[in-house]
Amino acid sequence: MTDNNSGFSDTKQEIMQATYDAIQQHGYAGLTIQSIADNFGKSKAALHYHYDTKEDILAAFLNYLLSEFRETIQIDEDSSPEQQLLDLVDVLLYGPDNSSSEEIFQMQTALLEIQSQSPHKQLYRDQFTQIYHWLGNLFVEIINNGIAENVFRDVNAHLTAQHLLLIIVGGILNRHTTNSEMSPDQIREIVTAQFLPYLKK
Amino acid sequence: MTDNNSGFSDTKQEIMQATYDAIQQHGYAGLTIQSIADNFGKSKAALHYHYDTKEDILAAFLNYLLSEFRETIQIDEDSSPEQQLLDLVDVLLYGPDNSSSEEIFQMQTALLEIQSQSPHKQLYRDQFTQIYHWLGNLFVEIINNGIAENVFRDVNAHLTAQHLLLIIVGGILNRHTTNSEMSPDQIREIVTAQFLPYLKK
Repeated sequence: MTDNNSGFSDTKQEIMQATYDAIQQHGYAGLTIQSIADNFGKSKAALHYHYDTKEDILAAFLNYLLSEFRETIQIDEDSSPEQQLLDLVDVLLYGPDNSSSEEIFQMQTALLEIQSQSPHKQLYRDQFTQIYHWLGNLFVEIINNGIAENVFRDVNAHLTAQHLLLIIVGGILNRHTTNSEMSPDQIREIVTAQFLPYLKK
Repeated sequence: MTDNNSGFSDTKQEIMQATYDAIQQHGYAGLTIQSIADNFGKSKAALHYHYDTKEDILAAFLNYLLSEFRETIQIDEDSSPEQQLLDLVDVLLYGPDNSSSEEIFQMQTALLEIQSQSPHKQLYRDQFTQIYHWLGNLFVEIINNGIAENVFRDVNAHLTAQHLLLIIVGGILNRHTTNSEMSPDQIREIVTAQFLPYLKK
């Protein structure tokens, strides 16, 4: 998160990093403008110069996460379509290579809480729509490559991409909101043992 | 919701019905003890005699929903395993026969909001655990019947049941939190066009 190719100014990039840190420290429920300002190293007023409300900051943060995804997640053109699909699934379930499982768990919890407010908060809803749309398109692209290379069956790529996305987001929802202790490994097993055999020729 | 076989006393049953109505009218965000008391037709004090907090009422409400599910959802032993599976999927996506799509939409939204607080509220978490557990077991039973009748492949029934559950809850999450307009019909199509062909012999 040191580069700045995302279209965010340096200051806004710093605020987004401060928001990221504040979510890690306090979770969504404990997140306040003050906690973000503390991580930003400036006053609440300095923060309000850029964003009116916590909702504005979090909508910008979702947009920032999407731009981070875009920079981080690169499809390895030398891999097989199956490997490309699994690489993308793994980064969604386990985070980028340098992230701890606790860090990812906390961030997923916070994102779920923000997402659950989307029915009533259009700013969030719009951002989640973009994130889902971008992920769905990536999956569609990989699936179409696999069909063209004759290693995947001739499926409806859009429906198949949605199917995979629902397994992942449903699994994350289940994991964070029940005592069932569904692990990322179990979600991955549904993908490898049930979804992929359906897709592969 | 007129019978009382659920182990709830008549008064508690009335409070649960009042909670159901209040959620329909105000959604989760607008839900207050007062709005439940209004539907209950008694004072807030009368409500507090039975439940200390809104959290207590909602945890009892989740438990009530599960007991309603248990009474409403009966597997038709004369149907094929495939039809039994689809009947259960349909009641989860579209609600019981007499419910309007708007009513189901509002209830699903409220449940998602309650569910999203489960990481921090053990009372909710325990109830959602029971609901998922009960649904998962129903799916496992149907899948095992299908395997025994030789119409389903010899799959890992538990993993397959989880897979189906994730498609449904992931689909409901997607539908309510993005502008993608994923409909119950589309979620059902993923089940019929992709999940079932994997399962069927």
